[in-house]
Amino acid sequence: MALVKVLGSAPSPYVNRVQIALNLKSVNYEFLQEQFGSKSELLLKSNPVHKRIPVLIHGEKSICESLIIVQYIDEVWIDGPSILPSDPYDRATARFWAAYFDDKWLPTIVVLRDAVGEEAKAAALEKVIEGLVPLEDAFTKCSKGKDFFGGDTIGYLDIAFGSFLRWISAIEVMANVKLFDEIKTPKLFGWAKMFGSNAAVKDVIPKTELLVEQIKKFAARANAQ
Amino acid sequence: MALVKVLGSAPSPYVNRVQIALNLKSVNYEFLQEQFGSKSELLLKSNPVHKRIPVLIHGEKSICESLIIVQYIDEVWIDGPSILPSDPYDRATARFWAAYFDDKWLPTIVVLRDAVGEEAKAAALEKVIEGLVPLEDAFTKCSKGKDFFGGDTIGYLDIAFGSFLRWISAIEVMANVKLFDEIKTPKLFGWAKMFGSNAAVKDVIPKTELLVEQIKKFAARANAQ
Repeated sequence: MALVKVLGSAPSPYVNRVQIALNLKSVNYEFLQEQFGSKSELLLKSNPVHKRIPVLIHGEKSICESLIIVQYIDEVWIDGPSILPSDPYDRATARFWAAYFDDKWLPTIVVLRDAVGEEAKAAALEKVIEGLVPLEDAFTKCSKGKDFFGGDTIGYLDIAFGSFLRWISAIEVMANVKLFDEIKTPKLFGWAKMFGSNAAVKDVIPKTELLVEQIKKFAARANAQ
Repeated sequence: MALVKVLGSAPSPYVNRVQIALNLKSVNYEFLQEQFGSKSELLLKSNPVHKRIPVLIHGEKSICESLIIVQYIDEVWIDGPSILPSDPYDRATARFWAAYFDDKWLPTIVVLRDAVGEEAKAAALEKVIEGLVPLEDAFTKCSKGKDFFGGDTIGYLDIAFGSFLRWISAIEVMANVKLFDEIKTPKLFGWAKMFGSNAAVKDVIPKTELLVEQIKKFAARANAQ
């Protein structure tokens, strides 16, 4: 029986965050697949408050909420590469931008996804792209000329943001828009390529085409109900 | 010139979190009062993304977002008492409940504050009290029989939750309801007394009566506009 288990669902970016963190630390884990639309006994027992994935099960302990799990992994497996920067100010900066991404930027993507009509779509798209500009600046400051927000290696903010890259690509395809741009956000454009091809990441995050197909399938199922 | 400055406004619980953390670490700081309804140049410069208080100014560095600042304080002034627990699982637990408080419980208080009519008020009140039950359980687990969520001393979750105690009291007074209850949530009831009378806290968090007065004044001003 594996000591470490991840309760999740393959195409969830929140679950992917946990998987990437474990891969970076070279921690083997068992993946327990939750079925879409139902909640297992184990999920209800291990995350009774939110009843949602991901949950990291480490021995007898259950840890919930993706970014809290990532920090837990960083603090438990200290022999692997550090996920949070060592300097307190750099740590605060990484936490700040990860919270910005989750609380400020992601909601704009949801508005874009649900926008109906050309005008609403254009207005929503503008907000999404506007919201990327501070992240482009953050990349310059955090990466210090290196490949990742975390510097030479993938860090906390790379995981928080990068786990959504394929979802962003899927929205680009489905809404026929361009979010990452070589001209407006050249650094994020370059970073996305580096992140997506990293060994700890590439087999974890879903393929864009597969995601587009799945989103369409879910939408069709929802519409049929 | 003080090395540490807090950009804030006296009755803000988010600002109080930062003040309590600094007091616990015995760090002297200068308090720079932001005026209600306007934003200083310094605020706009030091928190250009959210343009909101609190901001901790530490030398040349600005740190934003209350709980990120509290973690920063804990990581910089390591000689003072620890704010986050030392064990990774206990740290994850404290972070989990602090996020629960901010993201799940606080919104229910807002619904109660804005509820119109007896039926809506009763329904909102039920949600608020329901949401306290897991925090009562969390207290039992986190405190391990001691006075605070953090054990013998005030910790991260004490600060996150406790900074709102007087606001909770003010809502109790204004809505004529009882949220903390000796029967339903006896541990939180006891904890609130201990927290509010602690030396690092008592001169920081506002008096309930003052708060009630201020909330009424703001509401009258808003209604007059």
